[in-house]
Amino acid sequence: MKLSISKEHLNESIGHVSKAITSRTPIPILSGIKFDTTEEGVRLTASDADITIQSFIPVEKDGHTIIRVEQEGSVVLPAKFFGEIIKKLPSNEIEIEIRPPFQATIRSGGSEVQLVGLDPEEYPQLPVIEERKIVSVPGDLLKTMIRQTSYAVSTSEATPILTGVLWSLDEQGLKFISCDRHRLAQRETPLDASTEQYFRGVVISGKTLNELSKVIPDDHSLTDIVVSDNQVLFRMDNLLFYSRLLEGTYPDTSKLIPNQFQTEIVVSGKLLTEAIDRAYLLSREEKTNIVKLVMNEDQTLEISSSSSEIGKVTEMIPVESMTGQLLKISFNSKYMLDALRVIDSEAIRLGFTGAMSPIIIEPLGETKVLQLILPYRTTN
Amino acid sequence: MKLSISKEHLNESIGHVSKAITSRTPIPILSGIKFDTTEEGVRLTASDADITIQSFIPVEKDGHTIIRVEQEGSVVLPAKFFGEIIKKLPSNEIEIEIRPPFQATIRSGGSEVQLVGLDPEEYPQLPVIEERKIVSVPGDLLKTMIRQTSYAVSTSEATPILTGVLWSLDEQGLKFISCDRHRLAQRETPLDASTEQYFRGVVISGKTLNELSKVIPDDHSLTDIVVSDNQVLFRMDNLLFYSRLLEGTYPDTSKLIPNQFQTEIVVSGKLLTEAIDRAYLLSREEKTNIVKLVMNEDQTLEISSSSSEIGKVTEMIPVESMTGQLLKISFNSKYMLDALRVIDSEAIRLGFTGAMSPIIIEPLGETKVLQLILPYRTTN
Repeated sequence: MKLSISKEHLNESIGHVSKAITSRTPIPILSGIKFDTTEEGVRLTASDADITIQSFIPVEKDGHTIIRVEQEGSVVLPAKFFGEIIKKLPSNEIEIEIRPPFQATIRSGGSEVQLVGLDPEEYPQLPVIEERKIVSVPGDLLKTMIRQTSYAVSTSEATPILTGVLWSLDEQGLKFISCDRHRLAQRETPLDASTEQYFRGVVISGKTLNELSKVIPDDHSLTDIVVSDNQVLFRMDNLLFYSRLLEGTYPDTSKLIPNQFQTEIVVSGKLLTEAIDRAYLLSREEKTNIVKLVMNEDQTLEISSSSSEIGKVTEMIPVESMTGQLLKISFNSKYMLDALRVIDSEAIRLGFTGAMSPIIIEPLGETKVLQLILPYRTTN
Repeated sequence: MKLSISKEHLNESIGHVSKAITSRTPIPILSGIKFDTTEEGVRLTASDADITIQSFIPVEKDGHTIIRVEQEGSVVLPAKFFGEIIKKLPSNEIEIEIRPPFQATIRSGGSEVQLVGLDPEEYPQLPVIEERKIVSVPGDLLKTMIRQTSYAVSTSEATPILTGVLWSLDEQGLKFISCDRHRLAQRETPLDASTEQYFRGVVISGKTLNELSKVIPDDHSLTDIVVSDNQVLFRMDNLLFYSRLLEGTYPDTSKLIPNQFQTEIVVSGKLLTEAIDRAYLLSREEKTNIVKLVMNEDQTLEISSSSSEIGKVTEMIPVESMTGQLLKISFNSKYMLDALRVIDSEAIRLGFTGAMSPIIIEPLGETKVLQLILPYRTTN
């Protein structure tokens, strides 16, 4: 294998696939990046056995030469050091040559780097995925949907299935649900699809979705989602992102969400977020994060927290509307802040069905995002 | 005590004095900020017993009212929470009121914060410092001198005196020295002073100097340095920074610095830094940071490092001049990078007196900065 390649493009590609590299892998070859050179370009592959990312750099792009291939070939190079050194090479042109068995020489300006490579034949094969159920979603929408749900996955390995986000596609559209027993996040979007494309019970690790989010372009360009029995593939321009699905059955969360509310409030998202943030600061000192919300007859909300050692924070904010029964309720302010921060809306609707029942947080408008948090059971 | 104060100014002042707060102090009252209100303004004081910072906010500045004092008084407020909540208050006007015994009420917009204060009488007195030896140095120069020396202090508590920077003032000017047994940094600047102002053997903790550096304004405005037997005071505009001096005798480092060189090289600081940075990347993988430098007859330097597992980095850079004997020498690349990064000079002079003797790194020019690192004793 012998080629010269633009540092900028190689760097970007390494940046993408490196998201699949974990620092300590039990499979030594997975600490490397597989480097395949053909006449068409360079393909980089990295994997941690659960997720696999493949990036393709074409020899030419928009009429500019990116790669000059002298000899095709493959090698596996140590990911961490390879990524770091490429970034710091002095010239934008990088020459890479592999000599038998797998000895790499990288030249750029006055720098020469020798790397001990590994046999590409020993690198695991890409997952085989049946291309039956494919849907396409704009990148920016997919990123938003991930941001609005993945934060609420469980971090406890005691219930592995809850560390993932549940995806389904049917006549209602594409739907993501996450839940960690204390809170729930749900996002839907309409999506035209035929019955054969429908899927349900697809659970993807929240961590994986956060990594995926970093490589999805932040524009309207479409990301293909290919779902199979135990894998999902995200296909973007010159980038493939494979992930194993979480095994198990996701619990039915539909009964958690109330249909009717005793009390409904519409309030400015900014005022509510800032007030709860200040109350949170103090509640955090008590390690409980408990904040109390009291609805007043004069159309104001009183939000407060207290700490025996430090003192008390009391916030008064006006509401835009309030219907139903006046209520006192306590909740985890960190959870409420997390929920408020992923809702992109000026006005927020809060729904209550009593001091011991779930609190619903939704944007005012058409976007189907629903955040739910359970209240604290307190005596006052 | 009762007053209203501009959030922006209070915030800035809290930011300054908070640098003296440590998260775990054995003296409970030192986890607070002392708040003194007089007709002239507000004085904030924070301390960790070793350093004490005092910031003054005048009632008026440039014709703008910053504080409206209704009633003078003092209180000690919990530093961490007070600092955090002030930053997040909704309005730029903050009202603070203290009621007996030391109960603070802070109001801003729709927020009301109650804080449990402490008795200001229990707060330690400011260090008393004899104003005999005072010199003034422009803030930006003082910051540069600290940056060029404090990085090389020892981090080992086995030799506490070496965790400080040695300061002296005499007819040569103001001189800072730091040394951790593997490297030495020295910076001098001419300073007009009379014999009565001269001092020597003044050792200030490197950590303290880094904190000081953050509060010194980044301009030519003068910082007064007041030196006494066991304390030093830095006096800036509306800001006092007291520090205890380290006890003990700083070792004589003058003999470490060679007067004559077998070999002298002038080289571009940028080329040298970048080449060593790449070699460092690999040497770091071996945990030794060892990099080898070889001088060639064709007026080039070869800089290399190797790792049995990963490979080898070889860098060739041209020198601007090279006189004396050609040498091979090995050193800690991290130390060399640290030294190169604090020298603000395009061209660097390296001085050698043999493969086992200290390496001197200096800027080409008038600025009196000298960095010294000891080589590794290697067999090849």
